[in-house]
Amino acid sequence: MTSQPAPVLDLRGDLAALVTALCDVPSVSGDETRLADAVEAALRGFGHLEVLRDGDAVVARTHLGLPRRVVVAGHLDTVPLTDPPNLPVRVLDGPAGPELWGRGTVDMKAGVAVQLALAARLGADVVPAADLTWVFYDHEEVAANLNGLGRLVRNHPEWLEGDVAVLCEPTSGGIEGGCNGTLRVEVRTRGVAAHSARAWTGHNAIHDAAEVLARLAAYTPRTVDVDGLAYRESLNAVGIRGGISGNVVPDECVVTVNYRFAPDKSLAQAEAHVRELFDGFEVTRTDGAEGARPGLDDPLVADLVASVLAVTGGQPTAKLGWTDVARFSSLGIPAVNLGPGDPLLAHKDDERCPVGQVTATHDALLAWLTAH
Amino acid sequence: MTSQPAPVLDLRGDLAALVTALCDVPSVSGDETRLADAVEAALRGFGHLEVLRDGDAVVARTHLGLPRRVVVAGHLDTVPLTDPPNLPVRVLDGPAGPELWGRGTVDMKAGVAVQLALAARLGADVVPAADLTWVFYDHEEVAANLNGLGRLVRNHPEWLEGDVAVLCEPTSGGIEGGCNGTLRVEVRTRGVAAHSARAWTGHNAIHDAAEVLARLAAYTPRTVDVDGLAYRESLNAVGIRGGISGNVVPDECVVTVNYRFAPDKSLAQAEAHVRELFDGFEVTRTDGAEGARPGLDDPLVADLVASVLAVTGGQPTAKLGWTDVARFSSLGIPAVNLGPGDPLLAHKDDERCPVGQVTATHDALLAWLTAH
Repeated sequence: MTSQPAPVLDLRGDLAALVTALCDVPSVSGDETRLADAVEAALRGFGHLEVLRDGDAVVARTHLGLPRRVVVAGHLDTVPLTDPPNLPVRVLDGPAGPELWGRGTVDMKAGVAVQLALAARLGADVVPAADLTWVFYDHEEVAANLNGLGRLVRNHPEWLEGDVAVLCEPTSGGIEGGCNGTLRVEVRTRGVAAHSARAWTGHNAIHDAAEVLARLAAYTPRTVDVDGLAYRESLNAVGIRGGISGNVVPDECVVTVNYRFAPDKSLAQAEAHVRELFDGFEVTRTDGAEGARPGLDDPLVADLVASVLAVTGGQPTAKLGWTDVARFSSLGIPAVNLGPGDPLLAHKDDERCPVGQVTATHDALLAWLTAH
Repeated sequence: MTSQPAPVLDLRGDLAALVTALCDVPSVSGDETRLADAVEAALRGFGHLEVLRDGDAVVARTHLGLPRRVVVAGHLDTVPLTDPPNLPVRVLDGPAGPELWGRGTVDMKAGVAVQLALAARLGADVVPAADLTWVFYDHEEVAANLNGLGRLVRNHPEWLEGDVAVLCEPTSGGIEGGCNGTLRVEVRTRGVAAHSARAWTGHNAIHDAAEVLARLAAYTPRTVDVDGLAYRESLNAVGIRGGISGNVVPDECVVTVNYRFAPDKSLAQAEAHVRELFDGFEVTRTDGAEGARPGLDDPLVADLVASVLAVTGGQPTAKLGWTDVARFSSLGIPAVNLGPGDPLLAHKDDERCPVGQVTATHDALLAWLTAH
C-alpha cells in the first residue's frame, strides 16, 4: 500500500497546516507505514530527541536528567475513509472560527500534531519541567490484540516508563479522566439447514436471533459515577451475519455485540453481565480491554487539571470511549485524556476539528510542561 | 474451473453407474461446462437424435413425424458440496436396497440419468408414442434470472415446443403436480452510524431488525388446497447482514426473505402479502417466479398419472419447491414433476437416492412413452 514516499512534515510551522499534512497521508489501521515514516523522519531532525521505532510505532525521548518524566501518546491510525473519501482536508468556517474537515481531524491527528509541535520545541528552545517521552503508535482502531501501544508494552516496556501519561485522544480540549472498558462477544444461534421450500424439515437460526436483538433493543444502558465522574455505558450489536444461500434455511446466525462498560467493574465482571443478559444463548468472547478509573488524585495530574482550567476554563469529565489510558493505568502510571476535537464526531462522516481547539490544547500542555 | 476433460458417459449401461458418473463430475451452479460437454458428447453418439447446445444447456430431439411431442427436462447443476465434499458417490445399504449417497444424487442427477438412458433407447430400439425432446440445462439452483431453461425460452423457444412436459425433479418416483412460486425480498432497516462508545449519538439499525425477525418467527405458513392438491407454504429469512466495524453503531441491516407461495396466487399477490407482513419497513423485491397449478386435467398428463400408478402405486401430490414446471406452464404447456429421490433430502448433507426409485421412475416413463 505504501507506494508514495513519506511527505516532509514541518513541526515548527503552522499547527493547522501540520494537522492537514498528517491527515492527508491516509493511515487506516494496518496501513500506517507511510505516516510513521514521515513522523520518524521529522523527529530525527531534532538533536535533543532520542528516536526509537518498533513496527509502525515511533517513540522520541528527551534525556535532560530531570526528576520526573511525562509520557504523551497518540495513535497514527484512523477508521476507514468515507465513500467518496473525506480527504484531503478542507478548511471551512465554523461557529468559532475555521474548522478542519476530514477523516482523522478529530480521531486523532490534531492531537498528534500538538504532540509533534511540542516535541520539536520542548528540550530545544524551552527547558521543560519534566523529561518527556512522545509516543506515536499504530492499530488503535482495531481489535485490542493488534494495538501498537500494547505491543510496545510487551516488546519495550522501558520505552514507556514515566510518572504520568497524557493521551491526546479528542476531548474538545478538556481533561477526561479514565475511560470505559470495552468487551466484544459473539452471540450465536444454531439451527438445521434445509431447502427453503420445505422449511419445516429444518430450523431457522436467523429467526431464533429475534430474541437476541429484542434483548439488545430493550436494554437500557446505565450511567455510573466513579470518583465523581459520570461514565455512560453502551451496549450494541455492531454486526450480524447469517445465511448460506437464497434457497437454504440457515443453520447459524452470529450477532457481534460491543459492550462499553464503566470502570467500576473489571472486564471479567462486564463479561458476566453480558452472559447473564444473553442467558440461554451461546456467547463467545472475542475481544476485550479493561477500563481505567479517573486518576485525578495524582499531584502531577492535578497540576495538569489546573493548567487546562487556566487556559480554557474546562472542568474534568469522564472519558466514555476506551482509550489506551487503560494501558498506562495497568502499568501503574496515572493517565488522562486531553486532546482537540469533539469526541462525538470521531468516526463520523462529518468529522471536523476547530483550529482554536488545536491551539488551546497546545497552549495548555505547554503551560503545564514548562511550569517550574 | 474446467481443467479435466469431460468423462465418457455410458447411456446404455447400468443406471446406478450412470447416476454415479454424473454426480462424480461436480457441477455447482456456474460450473456446469464439463458435465454439459459430457452429456452433449454422449447424446451425439446416437443418430436418431438432433443435438443442440446453448451455453451449458443441451437439447436432444427425435424427428419421427409423430402427432404429439413430449418434453422431458432436468437441470445439470447442484447446490454447493459439503465440507468435506460429499463426493465421490458412495453406495450404502438402505432399508429398501442400495442407496447412492452424495451431492446431486437427489437433486437431480438421478433424474438426469433416467432422461439420458431413455433418450438413448427411445427412437432407436423402441418406437415411442410421441416425438421426444430431452432438455438438460444449467443454473437452476440460483437466482431465477440466471436459469438456463429461462434462457432457452428467450433464445430458442422453438426448441421447447411440445404438448406436455415432465420435469425429472425429485418426487420419490411419484407424480407431483404444479409447484409453489418463490419470491425473494430484502427487508432493510436504516440507522445512523456512530462510535459504539457513544451509541446514543447514533441509531442502531441491527436493533431495529428485532421486529423484522420477530414477525418472521411468529408467522405461521398456510397450507392451501389447489385443484385437490395441498400446497404447504414457507416464509424464511435466508440471510442477514449488517455492521461496519467492531466499534461502529451500524447504519443498515438487511434481512433477505424467501417466500414459497401456493399457486392459488400470482407473484404480485405474493409480493403484496409480504409487503403487508413487513408494513412499516423498507421492502425491495430482488427475485421471483410464478408458481404453477397442477395441470392434472390434461389427457396426456392423465395417461402419465395412470402409468405411474400402474408401476409404483403412487398417487399424485403437490410439488412444494419451485421448479421449472412453472416455465412450461407459462408457455401454455401442461407440466408435472416426476423423478427419483426424496425431495426432503435435496440440498441436505445426507442427500441420498435409493437405486430402486431410479429404476421405477425409468420404468414408469418408459411404459408411458411406449404406450400406443
